[in-house]
Amino acid sequence: MDTMRFNGQVLELLDQSILPLQIEYIQCETLNEVAEAIKSMKVRGAPAIGATAAFGLAIAANNFAGDDLDSYIYDAGITLKQTRPTAVNLFWAVDRMLAKYESIKQMDIPVIQKALVEEAQAIFDEDIASNKTMGMLGAELLPETGNVLTHCNAGALATAGYGTALGVIRAAHELGKTLHVYADETRPLLQGARLTAFELMQDNIPVTLITDNMAAYLMAQRRISAVIVGADRIAANGDVANKIGTYGLAVLAHHHQLPFYVAAPWSTIDLSIDSGAEIPIEERHESEVKSLYGMNVAPHNVAVYNPAFDVTPHGLVTAIITERGIIRYPFNENLKRKSHQKVVC
Amino acid sequence: MDTMRFNGQVLELLDQSILPLQIEYIQCETLNEVAEAIKSMKVRGAPAIGATAAFGLAIAANNFAGDDLDSYIYDAGITLKQTRPTAVNLFWAVDRMLAKYESIKQMDIPVIQKALVEEAQAIFDEDIASNKTMGMLGAELLPETGNVLTHCNAGALATAGYGTALGVIRAAHELGKTLHVYADETRPLLQGARLTAFELMQDNIPVTLITDNMAAYLMAQRRISAVIVGADRIAANGDVANKIGTYGLAVLAHHHQLPFYVAAPWSTIDLSIDSGAEIPIEERHESEVKSLYGMNVAPHNVAVYNPAFDVTPHGLVTAIITERGIIRYPFNENLKRKSHQKVVC
Repeated sequence: MDTMRFNGQVLELLDQSILPLQIEYIQCETLNEVAEAIKSMKVRGAPAIGATAAFGLAIAANNFAGDDLDSYIYDAGITLKQTRPTAVNLFWAVDRMLAKYESIKQMDIPVIQKALVEEAQAIFDEDIASNKTMGMLGAELLPETGNVLTHCNAGALATAGYGTALGVIRAAHELGKTLHVYADETRPLLQGARLTAFELMQDNIPVTLITDNMAAYLMAQRRISAVIVGADRIAANGDVANKIGTYGLAVLAHHHQLPFYVAAPWSTIDLSIDSGAEIPIEERHESEVKSLYGMNVAPHNVAVYNPAFDVTPHGLVTAIITERGIIRYPFNENLKRKSHQKVVC
Repeated sequence: MDTMRFNGQVLELLDQSILPLQIEYIQCETLNEVAEAIKSMKVRGAPAIGATAAFGLAIAANNFAGDDLDSYIYDAGITLKQTRPTAVNLFWAVDRMLAKYESIKQMDIPVIQKALVEEAQAIFDEDIASNKTMGMLGAELLPETGNVLTHCNAGALATAGYGTALGVIRAAHELGKTLHVYADETRPLLQGARLTAFELMQDNIPVTLITDNMAAYLMAQRRISAVIVGADRIAANGDVANKIGTYGLAVLAHHHQLPFYVAAPWSTIDLSIDSGAEIPIEERHESEVKSLYGMNVAPHNVAVYNPAFDVTPHGLVTAIITERGIIRYPFNENLKRKSHQKVVC
């Protein structure tokens, strides 16, 4: 099932807010439709947001009808960057599109438009390729047999395709490893229950759904071999921002001496910030916690705290799996070294 | 709001499965109605289950119309004990009722019936009294000001009245401490969102609702001063069975060097078992995880693991607050010593 499809003009996005109950694609023909889809989490997952934003900028360029393309393109970039604050892939993708634009801005508008469509498509294609490389590299880290715990959805649906954390699980499965996955449901928006369980079942990878608060008890029973998650932003020191609940799992994995792996493409790494303390953590609307599909699950006027992400300090991370290789402690040095490496994927 | 009311014949139970959206009492006039209310968690919380079961046995005795009261009463005890396996208060209350019956079984049936009603009422009254004593004792442990995290509902609704963990918070609030409570929503059945938030708001104790997977991030931000929970069964060595998710919070509290308190009446302590490994952990139906108020939140045929409780090893427990005093390490010795102590409450 495609997370997104682009025909050069229209971006079709699988509406992830209603999966798996309904399978529907929304049509985005304007910049604002793309921005709104990101904001409302119809598309989510750091790499998927990046690719979507790139297509959004290409759509904006295609729709240009004014007389100041330069302001128009940069404004479109700002609109996209204002959708969500935490995942750095969004900023990375928009900046890459703007750099492309900058390099060809003297050309004719149709040439620019075509080049931006191609650049967005390249971001999309490279994301899939990097996921597959990560899968191959990361699969080595998983045991031949055992139970792997994952949180939220870091699968094909969170990316252009294949997946980061689920890409690694998928690759291990393809290599013949007999893994079983425990999927945290991931409140409030239930990406684990709705998306991860759905994806794994479609691929016939055995999966059992649990609520978020059951992971510790499974670990205590020695029923988990490893934890693997995706990431929304990774700082220069290896601190990892990811879906709320990730940090708790990292502490639990540490307590139970279990490996805690993070799989993310290089576009998730933000060497411009020293540590996770600098990552802005999005807080979302209280209704996400207080109601589910419009049904109240708490007193009407109760106060709610709803951070969408948390930060896992690098000391709790066993390894970061990227398409440039597996990165371990000391993360600072090793991330810096890899940043100079030529990408092969 | 009364958790239950008994007029000597009919037990009215506040239906906790539909709170706070609807406030309704169910009428139990037979043993089977009482047993069903416990099984379906219309009444829940270890001490509340104990008191309910005691009233259930009194109702059974009142309804006796056969010729073998002895078998009838013991069968009623078995019916009640088979409702739920983990909370020991259920077994404790039924055994206390049976011991009362045993001591007066030679008497006339109306005398026995009256005595069993009185014994059930005594269990109910003593539970409230012990909660208040625990509150008074435990309140000393909480800071003058700060944020306290609690899980599930260990409040008036989980007991005959006042509450265990929430009783301690309530007492601290009454003493003028300015506490704010973070309430974990407690999936799958959302007792934190539906019951704890509701109870605290009714008492004007400031409360903020979070999903279960947000607790770790709050601790990392130093926004939690202490964790306090109830218990369903405490073994002789101090291991604590409580609502699923408790163990994870205990690990997180330990990692963040936060005190982790357990508040429970003596009826929750089971000195007949050496450790938590002997506590049977109830697994409940997968529908609790896969749907909410009848609404699907996961793929229809996904596998689910749904343990209702977990066990927190005593090494992660800072203190157990009982009506007989505050018990600390070494729990084994200190629990044994207190077990010989005369109860004053």
